[in-house]
Amino acid sequence: MSDLERWRELGQQLRVDSIRCSAAAKSGHPTSAMSAADLMAVLIDKYLRYDFESPEAPGNDHLVFSKGHASTLLYAIYRAAGAISDEELLSYRTFGSMLEGHPTPIIPWVDVATGSLGQGLPIGVGMALAGKYLDRLPYRVWVLCGDSEMAEGSMWEAYEHAAHYELDNLTAILDVNRLGQRGETMVGWNLDVYRDRAQAFGWHTIEIDGHDVEQIDRALEEASATTGRPTVVIARTVKGKGVKAVEDKNGFHGKALDDPQASIDELGGLRSIRVDVAKPPADATPHRFETRELELPRYEVGEEVATRKAYGDALTALGAARGDVVALDGEVSNSTYADIFAKAHPERYFEMYIAEQQMVAAAVGLQTRGWKPFGSTFAAFVSRAYDFVRMAAISRASFCLSGSHAGVSIGEDGPSQMALEDLAALRAVHGSTVLHPCEANSTAKLVAQMADLEGIVFLRTLRPATPVLYGPDEEFPIGGSRVVRSSDEDDVALVACGITVHEALRAADALEGEGIRARVIDAYSVKPIDAETLAAAAEATQGRIVTAEDHWPEGGLGEAVLSALAEREERARVVKLGVQGMPRSGKPAELMHAAGIDAEHIAEAARKLVGAPVTAAR
Amino acid sequence: MSDLERWRELGQQLRVDSIRCSAAAKSGHPTSAMSAADLMAVLIDKYLRYDFESPEAPGNDHLVFSKGHASTLLYAIYRAAGAISDEELLSYRTFGSMLEGHPTPIIPWVDVATGSLGQGLPIGVGMALAGKYLDRLPYRVWVLCGDSEMAEGSMWEAYEHAAHYELDNLTAILDVNRLGQRGETMVGWNLDVYRDRAQAFGWHTIEIDGHDVEQIDRALEEASATTGRPTVVIARTVKGKGVKAVEDKNGFHGKALDDPQASIDELGGLRSIRVDVAKPPADATPHRFETRELELPRYEVGEEVATRKAYGDALTALGAARGDVVALDGEVSNSTYADIFAKAHPERYFEMYIAEQQMVAAAVGLQTRGWKPFGSTFAAFVSRAYDFVRMAAISRASFCLSGSHAGVSIGEDGPSQMALEDLAALRAVHGSTVLHPCEANSTAKLVAQMADLEGIVFLRTLRPATPVLYGPDEEFPIGGSRVVRSSDEDDVALVACGITVHEALRAADALEGEGIRARVIDAYSVKPIDAETLAAAAEATQGRIVTAEDHWPEGGLGEAVLSALAEREERARVVKLGVQGMPRSGKPAELMHAAGIDAEHIAEAARKLVGAPVTAAR
Repeated sequence: MSDLERWRELGQQLRVDSIRCSAAAKSGHPTSAMSAADLMAVLIDKYLRYDFESPEAPGNDHLVFSKGHASTLLYAIYRAAGAISDEELLSYRTFGSMLEGHPTPIIPWVDVATGSLGQGLPIGVGMALAGKYLDRLPYRVWVLCGDSEMAEGSMWEAYEHAAHYELDNLTAILDVNRLGQRGETMVGWNLDVYRDRAQAFGWHTIEIDGHDVEQIDRALEEASATTGRPTVVIARTVKGKGVKAVEDKNGFHGKALDDPQASIDELGGLRSIRVDVAKPPADATPHRFETRELELPRYEVGEEVATRKAYGDALTALGAARGDVVALDGEVSNSTYADIFAKAHPERYFEMYIAEQQMVAAAVGLQTRGWKPFGSTFAAFVSRAYDFVRMAAISRASFCLSGSHAGVSIGEDGPSQMALEDLAALRAVHGSTVLHPCEANSTAKLVAQMADLEGIVFLRTLRPATPVLYGPDEEFPIGGSRVVRSSDEDDVALVACGITVHEALRAADALEGEGIRARVIDAYSVKPIDAETLAAAAEATQGRIVTAEDHWPEGGLGEAVLSALAEREERARVVKLGVQGMPRSGKPAELMHAAGIDAEHIAEAARKLVGAPVTAAR
Repeated sequence: MSDLERWRELGQQLRVDSIRCSAAAKSGHPTSAMSAADLMAVLIDKYLRYDFESPEAPGNDHLVFSKGHASTLLYAIYRAAGAISDEELLSYRTFGSMLEGHPTPIIPWVDVATGSLGQGLPIGVGMALAGKYLDRLPYRVWVLCGDSEMAEGSMWEAYEHAAHYELDNLTAILDVNRLGQRGETMVGWNLDVYRDRAQAFGWHTIEIDGHDVEQIDRALEEASATTGRPTVVIARTVKGKGVKAVEDKNGFHGKALDDPQASIDELGGLRSIRVDVAKPPADATPHRFETRELELPRYEVGEEVATRKAYGDALTALGAARGDVVALDGEVSNSTYADIFAKAHPERYFEMYIAEQQMVAAAVGLQTRGWKPFGSTFAAFVSRAYDFVRMAAISRASFCLSGSHAGVSIGEDGPSQMALEDLAALRAVHGSTVLHPCEANSTAKLVAQMADLEGIVFLRTLRPATPVLYGPDEEFPIGGSRVVRSSDEDDVALVACGITVHEALRAADALEGEGIRARVIDAYSVKPIDAETLAAAAEATQGRIVTAEDHWPEGGLGEAVLSALAEREERARVVKLGVQGMPRSGKPAELMHAAGIDAEHIAEAARKLVGAPVTAAR
């Protein structure tokens, strides 16, 4: 059988298998798989270099299904490659099968979860950055993109960054089957539009008939040989290709075919072509950066240092001690202080410009190769990438985010720059860690621990300088807290994080003058939160607790505290102070006061609690 | 004075005033204002049609500062237009002044808040949609864009949608001053790159020297005369233009000038040119759509109907009764059932394709003109637009979002399609309303109320059909809840929303057989939550409460319940059931069980609570 014939047959096999497994599941997106089957047939048989027995091999290419709903095609590839049995293929979408509706990394050969469209290509940019600038290995990143997902702005962020960083190891394969879930895309089959856009963004482009295996072969050859810029293969395809009942027809997205056997017959029946996917060079050794011992910055107690500055200092020190640490920033590195790292470790710093989605996607891509990315921007703008963070958790990704300029304490810039929902949003990410220290030495100690944590780790930092409270040799374990002030006979506990720790201390001073003893807890670890210390405080104070946070009242510290105490036998009575009313511009102190979270409000809440009865349930 | 001379002088005045007010505030972004001053001088003196005394006038043009950090320029315009006094200008960024660091609609002439970059243009698309297709008035939308923000993918979503909808009433003015906050943009002064990209996205383009008022005049003239597509004026400008110490220099972003008086002198000193901004036609009357009486859909008790279907039915009915209701969807209208509305009211439906940021931005833009947008997509993908939702709250915007496919109950499609963080994210939006009904009739009644609420209203709907529990004539007030089942001697309260209401009812059945009486509360209004009913339940059950939600444990129903009860004198003991572990594909019942939120887990939690002691605080 000639190569061309073999590829045509393999394409049909991938179609048939897509139909078979979705028929077994009675759901799935076979028509979206069928349009891209020929593209993938040629890719896996001739161009992909991948060792299925060694998915962690540094030399492996990376294949990303940005159009994750075409998962049946990916699984059909696994069967063709001998990685899964036919029986396993047919377990598609059943409970307990690793072959989920959309690919996730519970499959050993899947790097990242896809299924929220517009994410695979930006993540591929991160992988290609790793290959070209960090690992310095010749692996290629192949991303199968749908045409519908080109409406997501994140795809254009990826286009711009890939060209800016000259990622010639990245190939996007654009499956232009014209039809989305509910109808035609804005562009339809006007391939020249995709070409013009891609070229305007600096890409090499190749337009082909996506069902002509000869053209596909030449295109992938040309993509592999193109240097200095990424290539997009723009393939005109037919959705549902090969089965007349659904070919190029609306209304067949996301459903199994009505008559699978007839469709399989129309495609020439079941095939069992086995593809020996080429293995990457066995001697591929990733580049490693030199390291020396960790020397964290040290700050004097009483000194005024912004925690964002401590982040930059500590990250730079960590970068010197760990060659795997990489920094990314969204064009605000002189505010987040990622610029200190950039100056010290320019080879491991990537400027991501004002493209937060791409920044998080790049972090996800980089960590698939074992790098430890720290991305930073204003915490308010982490919200721009929230879907990417959500998906990163499904990707089982581990990376760190630092969000600066928390809350109203930023002052004059006004509410658009104030993160007030970030604790809620980041707490509600599966497996996340959320940290919000109030001073410099604890920040440095936390940064040093962040790189070792699994999952998504979020550090919230402050714009204004705050006094250093703790010595540089103290420890701040993740999940811990710090009782900053206490006595044997505390009347009330004030639980705070970040800027409000300093307000709580002022409140405690004021209360002391009135004979009320306040315990002050610095809950620098908001998730996991230190339930034990909170429980002890509840017990010591007859359950009187005030929480104060520079955040909306929903989903942040206050509710974390309530959750930690919810099931206890002994009850607590919690007054939760969060930002009241939409903040405006002004001085930090003015805004903290107006928001109802300053020392005065904390003290007032404590007074009321101490004066109020605490009764048992009946 | 000739027009050209006048514009040059006016440009200098806008620069001087930007320097003056930022000097008074000791902060701000004067250099970012100075690059765009000439562009705005010509615009306001000749092209803008705006009645400052009547900002709600339907015929008014809309001027949006997408580069919101150039706020001093906007405020300098207000002084030139006689809308504010010199004294007010100098109140910039002080507490209580309406002239905030970034523009917000507490200023009567500002439609929307900007300051998170990449949002003004997509919102402008919404305004232009309103002008062309709904109001059917000849007002123009002018959007001043920064070049740095072109790195945000949302700008390219706006480009694509503006061209797709042939928005010739929209003009983007791109201030290419080359320098971002920390350095040069990816494109620099290569204006042709911006031109090629814009053309590839279907825009008319004009390249000019942004400091040559004659060229600016001609460009704005040409933009106004261009039909069938939007225009971008690509202006080469100099950051800090006019003050040699900062002109085209890095390191002067976002700070007041060091020597304001010298800079003002260099610019020729204080000026007080008064611009009589042209007024729009006084007789501009927006188009209105015909209406008839509201006839909500009615479902039979016991019938199985998905709440997403009830959303589509009810929205369609509401659209017939209210001519101001508009629907948008992110290319999933056959899943969210927005397609029912689209068929019934095609003139008021906008397909936003897979571009959730643009969808929310369009909603924000549409509501500035009094329309009532309902945007829909999978609830999981609302996370894609979270920064837009956050900013919309600062914009004091009122619109509705419907997120379908909540939680693990969607089944086989897997975690990428499951919204599990949306309640937390949307609760943490200032002034938001969060609704999650469990059946069809209450959904319909809630949809009817949504259009009248202020702020951002989020309705979470279910993929699977659920039995109708309530009659079609019952009422479901916002902030209320429904006690579905209770007795005089309840032992425990089960609080649920959405799919878990049905699980809680099953759990109550099982418990009844064991002699445990469970009250079941349908908390369809998650924010505001019905604290009174919860308190009564706590009182009736000796504080024994189980919450169950198809959502991560953080920030959703459980914590809303805890917050509602936190300050009560009498204590509750709350067991919070939320999704445990990362879900996979499978049948809804399998996934609900694995997640620990099905009837069996609810009953087990209730049993434990009833058997456990409830003690008072000491």
